[in-house]
Amino acid sequence: MTEERTGAARRGRPGYDRATVLRRAISLFNERGYEATSIADLARDLGVTKSAVFHHVSSKEDLLAAALDEALDGLAAATDAAVASTGASARERLRAAVTESVSILVEHLPAVTLLLRVRGNSAVEQRALQRRRAIDDRLAALVREAAADGDIRDDIEPELVSRLIFGAVNSLVEWYRPGGPLSPEELGAAVVRMTFEGLAPRTEVPPR
Amino acid sequence: MTEERTGAARRGRPGYDRATVLRRAISLFNERGYEATSIADLARDLGVTKSAVFHHVSSKEDLLAAALDEALDGLAAATDAAVASTGASARERLRAAVTESVSILVEHLPAVTLLLRVRGNSAVEQRALQRRRAIDDRLAALVREAAADGDIRDDIEPELVSRLIFGAVNSLVEWYRPGGPLSPEELGAAVVRMTFEGLAPRTEVPPR
Repeated sequence: MTEERTGAARRGRPGYDRATVLRRAISLFNERGYEATSIADLARDLGVTKSAVFHHVSSKEDLLAAALDEALDGLAAATDAAVASTGASARERLRAAVTESVSILVEHLPAVTLLLRVRGNSAVEQRALQRRRAIDDRLAALVREAAADGDIRDDIEPELVSRLIFGAVNSLVEWYRPGGPLSPEELGAAVVRMTFEGLAPRTEVPPR
Repeated sequence: MTEERTGAARRGRPGYDRATVLRRAISLFNERGYEATSIADLARDLGVTKSAVFHHVSSKEDLLAAALDEALDGLAAATDAAVASTGASARERLRAAVTESVSILVEHLPAVTLLLRVRGNSAVEQRALQRRRAIDDRLAALVREAAADGDIRDDIEPELVSRLIFGAVNSLVEWYRPGGPLSPEELGAAVVRMTFEGLAPRTEVPPR
């Protein structure tokens, strides 16, 4: 976030643009809570007047909607791409969905963090929860299909399997910070290995 | 929660007690956010005056601290019990820690939900984050010990393994609702199976 305030997005610009306003708004919403953050707080943080902020956005809810759409567009595209990949088994598509989701979480960490805290306290939040549920339903259907194929365990309800897999994936927003020892690709691979293989010691190359 | 307002905790009582005030406060904090909830909101929700609420609690932060302690006391006790169990391997103690944590999450779902949303915006929240980190450190040490024993995989950093396991566990606050098809025990068993065994189809009884 810091780069976005002081780096390329602002350098050479007198003032700021809508993208910068949105990035700072997402940070403040995540730090203090959406309800506890006002446009006045955002203006103060950016060092501009409230009316300067309103030049770029019509309301605080406008910023929230844009942030949630950023996260949801990414997650929906990742799920669509994984689910639709032709010639791949449901198990392989599930693996792709996990990998792609990790990549979106890393790429849009602040927006996804905000999304995962939404409780449904307004029409904007309700719409976001609805979009999230639609994505979750597609992922659960993929788990169900892989179980029906006999390619993953079928002794635990697919809905629960899906919730636990993506619970582990989504926990990234709590602890992943850019610049750590693992690249996003290594992180995605580790999440896939943990969710697909569990904790068993690697005594031999797994059969599949 | 509804039972607590209308059921045993209130029935036969003129008014309410501190426990009821705390339960309702936790619900409101979870629904609307801590910052966005006032003692006046709580009083309105309980149908009493603000001074009646202040008869039981000294401040809103007092309620937050009590709620976070409820969650943290439960999680710390669960971790302590699992970590300390003598004669058990680190792997067995890790399994117990997962099972016990699920049980605490189910038993104290609203308080743990609140805990997992804390950002550290006050001394009370900072202290809660510190206690949470101490618990996480003990769990990660258990994973490290099990990996050193050769009893679980050692090709993924123990800290990351621990985060992913308890990411799946903690996701319960997002989707678990009492009265579902699974008992808390069945849920705990399913979480252990998923985290320890992963997704592989059950073609035979696993070797351990």
